Amino acid sequence: MSDVSVAERLRQQPPVAQVRVRYADTDQMGVVYYANYLAWFEVGRTEWLRRDGWNYRHMETDGVYLPVITAHCEYARSARYDDVIDIHAAGRLISPARLAFDYALVRVADAACLATGYTEHATTTAAGRPVRIPARIRELLA
Amino acid sequence: MSDVSVAERLRQQPPVAQVRVRYADTDQMGVVYYANYLAWFEVGRTEWLRRDGWNYRHMETDGVYLPVITAHCEYARSARYDDVIDIHAAGRLISPARLAFDYALVRVADAACLATGYTEHATTTAAGRPVRIPARIRELLA
Amino acid sequence: MSDVSVAERLRQQPPVAQVRVRYADTDQMGVVYYANYLAWFEVGRTEWLRRDGWNYRHMETDGVYLPVITAHCEYARSARYDDVIDIHAAGRLISPARLAFDYALVRVADAACLATGYTEHATTTAAGRPVRIPARIRELLA
Amino acid sequence: MSDVSVAERLRQQPPVAQVRVRYADTDQMGVVYYANYLAWFEVGRTEWLRRDGWNYRHMETDGVYLPVITAHCEYARSARYDDVIDIHAAGRLISPARLAFDYALVRVADAACLATGYTEHATTTAAGRPVRIPARIRELLA
Repeated sequence: MSDVSVAERLRQQPPVAQVRVRYADTDQMGVVYYANYLAWFEVGRTEWLRRDGWNYRHMETDGVYLPVITAHCEYARSARYDDVIDIHAAGRLISPARLAFDYALVRVADAACLATGYTEHATTTAAGRPVRIPARIRELLA
Repeated sequence: MSDVSVAERLRQQPPVAQVRVRYADTDQMGVVYYANYLAWFEVGRTEWLRRDGWNYRHMETDGVYLPVITAHCEYARSARYDDVIDIHAAGRLISPARLAFDYALVRVADAACLATGYTEHATTTAAGRPVRIPARIRELLA
Repeated sequence: MSDVSVAERLRQQPPVAQVRVRYADTDQMGVVYYANYLAWFEVGRTEWLRRDGWNYRHMETDGVYLPVITAHCEYARSARYDDVIDIHAAGRLISPARLAFDYALVRVADAACLATGYTEHATTTAAGRPVRIPARIRELLA
Repeated sequence: MSDVSVAERLRQQPPVAQVRVRYADTDQMGVVYYANYLAWFEVGRTEWLRRDGWNYRHMETDGVYLPVITAHCEYARSARYDDVIDIHAAGRLISPARLAFDYALVRVADAACLATGYTEHATTTAAGRPVRIPARIRELLA
């Protein structure tokens, strides 16, 4: 599925979170430093899981971790200082022990899509050993 | 070209920089937060350009900017606090107005490849208008 | 005035902003990395100015910058992942060309004061030359 | 002791580390974001301890943590992109269960002191209970 269609699909759902760009996020080019979009992706997956009755902190209590194995971001337009940005996110299963999240970042002022991307995650114990995704998370992702 | 072969090719050249993992880089999973690898990629492309007689700061003096349009990272093993990491990087042309850099991050202690990835960049003016890559940069990337 | 009394005074006013701790904010000690509190202080002063009808972005349009000349933070209790934190902030004049902001960070769940601090700022042009604080900002700070 | 004299004293010793300013460190004012100096302070105390035969990672293996209880930074001149900066640091005891580090950041190109500051630390177990500073660390700090 192309990035464009992912973004369209994600934007049919309400955003899971909203952030305002801080000075701390910008760089001397006058735009948000490219690595910081990945912190917003993290906010997106956390809040998507929370909305579906799941708590990321609780997941770790259960001993299931979601280390990132791939991160990808396409930057379409620059986020700028003080911009308010809607974070759209959704999870999906990619195998019995792997899941992924798709993201779209949309500036509220002009509805411009600033970036899209995805992350892929293993499911592991705290010690890093692979585990199957617990049933109730699998249901959320189906 | 697969990520594995990119990493192999990059590792045939000496690293362009070396970093030591700071507390600031880690997260509560006890490993380096995934977005921070992208800051190391930045160090990689900066130092690769510098080695080839080019200075990133100078580039901006010339009015040529390299905004990131795609970032991609594959995480193989976790970088941990106090690890010393070699950054391997190399640039390549992808079109008359676009270039890319490939990266491999290698832990010095055990020669483990922690991550590979790439970034793609437009070449623009400070105002964001596309420009052709200056001849002398094009030569470095050929 | 002691830090305790500053915190008490600040907490008599409603918070100017609220943040939730991200994974990105934590370090391997399992708490928020100490430098990240300063980014929350930035959110505090920005929102305090905005509430009083002033926009930090607008200030720069006017050519007035507020570079930090001193930052100070007292850490009382650790902020942890997923904590929701109220940011209390207020500005004050310290000279015709200097101002300060006081901050208190309060965890919502248990009303614990996690940290207090202040920043002092010069008022300068974009080029870094000192300028007097514009009248309408001075009024906010009186 | 004034900040000036601390800086002078620190600069009589060789720097404990050197960093080069990254794009990631800058903000849209074209200078290093103020919170990032605290990450350099962390590099300073880590390397100061290492030089004296002590390893911060090892300290945690021993079950002694050094949470920051106060951080203070005075910003004299702006660090800019690509600047190479010497980090000077030194530790000192402030009580049987507290220690402090002083810092001075000096730009190599012009020997300008960019910032000075200090951090104060408790000594605790992993669970956060205060412990006396181990004898061999106390000796380093004397």
